[in-house]
Amino acid sequence: MRLLFIGDIVGRAGRAIVQNKLPGLVRDWKLDLVVINGENAAGGFGITEAIYHELIDAGADAITLGNHSWDQREALVFIERAPRLIRPVNYPKGAPGRGAALVEAKNGKRALVINVMGRIFMDPLDDPFAAVEREIAACPLREAADAIVVDIHCEASSEKQAMGYFCDGRASLVVGTHTHVPTADHRIMPGGTAFMTDAGMTGDYDSVIGMVKDEPLSRFLRKIPGSKFEPAAGPATLSGVAVELDDKTGLAVTVSAVRIGGLLEQTAPQWG
Amino acid sequence: MRLLFIGDIVGRAGRAIVQNKLPGLVRDWKLDLVVINGENAAGGFGITEAIYHELIDAGADAITLGNHSWDQREALVFIERAPRLIRPVNYPKGAPGRGAALVEAKNGKRALVINVMGRIFMDPLDDPFAAVEREIAACPLREAADAIVVDIHCEASSEKQAMGYFCDGRASLVVGTHTHVPTADHRIMPGGTAFMTDAGMTGDYDSVIGMVKDEPLSRFLRKIPGSKFEPAAGPATLSGVAVELDDKTGLAVTVSAVRIGGLLEQTAPQWG
Amino acid sequence: MRLLFIGDIVGRAGRAIVQNKLPGLVRDWKLDLVVINGENAAGGFGITEAIYHELIDAGADAITLGNHSWDQREALVFIERAPRLIRPVNYPKGAPGRGAALVEAKNGKRALVINVMGRIFMDPLDDPFAAVEREIAACPLREAADAIVVDIHCEASSEKQAMGYFCDGRASLVVGTHTHVPTADHRIMPGGTAFMTDAGMTGDYDSVIGMVKDEPLSRFLRKIPGSKFEPAAGPATLSGVAVELDDKTGLAVTVSAVRIGGLLEQTAPQWG
Amino acid sequence: MRLLFIGDIVGRAGRAIVQNKLPGLVRDWKLDLVVINGENAAGGFGITEAIYHELIDAGADAITLGNHSWDQREALVFIERAPRLIRPVNYPKGAPGRGAALVEAKNGKRALVINVMGRIFMDPLDDPFAAVEREIAACPLREAADAIVVDIHCEASSEKQAMGYFCDGRASLVVGTHTHVPTADHRIMPGGTAFMTDAGMTGDYDSVIGMVKDEPLSRFLRKIPGSKFEPAAGPATLSGVAVELDDKTGLAVTVSAVRIGGLLEQTAPQWG
Ligand SMILES: [Fe+2]
Ligand SMILES: [Fe+2]
Ligand SMILES: [Fe+2]
Ligand SMILES: [Fe+2]
Ligand SMILES: [Fe+2]
Ligand SMILES: [Fe+2]
Ligand SMILES: [Fe+2]
Ligand SMILES: [Fe+2]
Repeated sequence: MRLLFIGDIVGRAGRAIVQNKLPGLVRDWKLDLVVINGENAAGGFGITEAIYHELIDAGADAITLGNHSWDQREALVFIERAPRLIRPVNYPKGAPGRGAALVEAKNGKRALVINVMGRIFMDPLDDPFAAVEREIAACPLREAADAIVVDIHCEASSEKQAMGYFCDGRASLVVGTHTHVPTADHRIMPGGTAFMTDAGMTGDYDSVIGMVKDEPLSRFLRKIPGSKFEPAAGPATLSGVAVELDDKTGLAVTVSAVRIGGLLEQTAPQWG
Repeated sequence: MRLLFIGDIVGRAGRAIVQNKLPGLVRDWKLDLVVINGENAAGGFGITEAIYHELIDAGADAITLGNHSWDQREALVFIERAPRLIRPVNYPKGAPGRGAALVEAKNGKRALVINVMGRIFMDPLDDPFAAVEREIAACPLREAADAIVVDIHCEASSEKQAMGYFCDGRASLVVGTHTHVPTADHRIMPGGTAFMTDAGMTGDYDSVIGMVKDEPLSRFLRKIPGSKFEPAAGPATLSGVAVELDDKTGLAVTVSAVRIGGLLEQTAPQWG
Repeated sequence: MRLLFIGDIVGRAGRAIVQNKLPGLVRDWKLDLVVINGENAAGGFGITEAIYHELIDAGADAITLGNHSWDQREALVFIERAPRLIRPVNYPKGAPGRGAALVEAKNGKRALVINVMGRIFMDPLDDPFAAVEREIAACPLREAADAIVVDIHCEASSEKQAMGYFCDGRASLVVGTHTHVPTADHRIMPGGTAFMTDAGMTGDYDSVIGMVKDEPLSRFLRKIPGSKFEPAAGPATLSGVAVELDDKTGLAVTVSAVRIGGLLEQTAPQWG
Repeated sequence: MRLLFIGDIVGRAGRAIVQNKLPGLVRDWKLDLVVINGENAAGGFGITEAIYHELIDAGADAITLGNHSWDQREALVFIERAPRLIRPVNYPKGAPGRGAALVEAKNGKRALVINVMGRIFMDPLDDPFAAVEREIAACPLREAADAIVVDIHCEASSEKQAMGYFCDGRASLVVGTHTHVPTADHRIMPGGTAFMTDAGMTGDYDSVIGMVKDEPLSRFLRKIPGSKFEPAAGPATLSGVAVELDDKTGLAVTVSAVRIGGLLEQTAPQWG
């Protein structure tokens, strides 16, 4: 089984490259499961129902979110009729939508996708480790799911790596999001779980974390908000991680960084 | 002129690979300048005078620090007699040592090395942008320095990238440290400055940011300190970034990630 | 029923005034319940078993803690045999001790004492509101408890005040701790719960939050740790809040600030 | 010389009590200098030019700000023609307005008013201690100013108290703002400077830090923004601190809390 996880889509530039490239990747790479973090898809802030469908139509099987989940307030409503949209699982009880979903992969297999937010330097939600434990215990790999993907959305590399080891041997892939920079530490952990500290963003890297650089730079220099943040509109890099699973174990056989288009060094998986 | 920047050395494993590999790299790659972040070199916390000399002897031309600068309290003293040891420039006035130094490179050229700490999610020091501005203005590229390297030690990717653009065209390399994970976004900015959000750590990646994983994991799960953090002792990856400069402009011609040894995907520069 | 809550005891000076004054206050004021925050009782950091007994002997019916709960590591063990020692209720499952206790008051009534930690600018524990909800639901005022005291240990005044309103009508007293400064906003909320944003510390106020001022001041100025923090040893103020309850409702009839000894303006309740 | 400092005015309710009460207080108490923190005067967020004049007309000699300085963007402009409006002195160079002003008191004396922001748990500005040092050195008490008032706007009680000791003997009054809760620790420090950790807010205390409580409570419980924050509109408390100075030294002879109107325990100075 082949998975592709695509990091935070930022604005129109990020959406464009996904729409242009993802259908071809699904076909050429014979992808069985595509998960995309979409928390910045709508102008850098949140996601709309139209964009949700756009991404599903382009080949996404599940879309995860993060601290920007509700920036577009319509998400609080349409998430209830968007079964493949997954917000952090550790919101307080009663939050709209779901924090984990068992989705049908393109090959008919069952994939459990979990989105969870870390707490270091973030708005404190419920314990991310206890929340992930509950989801994995309720739907264990091999018994109830053929693949498990955990998107740990947080700032601190330590918290992401701790989540990786916490799930090692029990998930197919644990991947971080939120810093908007791809890390080069993709690897298979001792227990067989693929891991990468951050998938990076899918957007224009000639920017400050995807945003036109003038305003962030001005705020750092002057400490006075000037105008709104706007997503950078130059050519985007589709950034993420690809994993080949052992179908018997649901664990990783290979893990590769993916960077297509834009400024960054290009890389793609060598499928077996 | 050829530069190699090596990210945060963590403990004995990190020091060992530097001592084993760096002399050969200097020779084979014809390196003119080697800068190493050493804030975690002594058991994960700070640096001692003995380690300082060990790293200089292995080929470092300058050693930078960060939030762990003074974890080994002897550093407050010996930094005064360690001219190539550079602590964050934006400490309050009166801090021991120096925040920038014009060091002689192996080819006799003058290299200005600046260490600066960001403030987002960090102990707030003085304005990092104003501090770097002062140093660069006092010793501008081409006029007073043949190369300028800025180590921006901080947590947030936005602050590191803002520093990159702030120095673009005025420094040879702006590279982040502190997250202990190499990023895959090395590139040459529009003005000619090489940039990479984080150089990664030089240590054992089968760990939580270089530390044996049990204690960090236990703290995340139980919220109770158990024992001390210990550096992981498995095979280390030497992680950093290599830059070839145009000798006329002091700006970057090529920039490459460097990862040698250990768990991570290996990579080395293709020098022209 | 008469309650006295005493804020964070800091070191020897704080313990001394409690031992000197509390027995007399219990007698003269006919106190039925005394709750003391003891997280800084042992040299400013945590609590020992000997100090626990000292405070109980002086008249405390329950002792609460906070972010310094485990600074004296023996607390992880002796808390199990210290039934009136209460650590934050929102630690992860499996933490030693208890986060709430139904203690017998001096008049034989049942008092539920809850300690909970806020999360704004603090180490993120579990949701404090959900945790308090569970405790109050399991042991409601009037039905299962004659008085309920909630010690909300946190930094932000907004979080403390939100906790006050959250419990209004369902607790006898919600009082904040942790900032080590008494607030002057003690009042009875619309539903009948007594509230005060912070009880203040019981220690020497000629200090920085109870500590000898030189070292904290030096760290602010130099950003370099010098020596250890030491509790200030001058005359302490016993700082807290006194509440008279309606015995039928368990809600507050009067609430008064208490400040005895030391530098601060002195004040004591006018019992009816 | 008699000073009155009034803490953060929050919205219409706060402005109303200042307009109703301040003229009488100036007359009855023979006040020579009135300083008001106005960062939340305009609907809870910032200040407008009209409100600035309203407060000056009511008797303010100087108005200080804080982290909400620029919430009303017109403040970036009109501050240049508002000589008694003072924003934090430790903004980066080039910020509009001034961070300290020597204003003429009602008795013709010269009062230096400084506004400075702390950095613990706040947006990191420049070093507040170095900034205050510069202002006091440039205009020392007795030599160039008859009174010096420092408004240290910050979250952490430790930072405020450190600023108090830092200025002790060199300022007439150091008073904290920002937490929106009055502290009961007003005192004269050993060197003669009056100090109070927080002046409290001037607004409706049946609220969460001045705001209608529903929305803040909902955000704590649900972690989802609902609607905007609105200032609470019930009867306000004018909260602050009054100081009588020795005219020869410019240091404090008496210091008293001031709480007039609204829910809180009422208190007023006993002038000599
Ligand atoms: Fe994002
Ligand atoms: Fe995010
Ligand atoms: Fe480091
Ligand atoms: Fe660091
Ligand atoms: Fe405390
Ligand atoms: Fe505390
Ligand atoms: Fe305020
Ligand atoms: Fe404020």
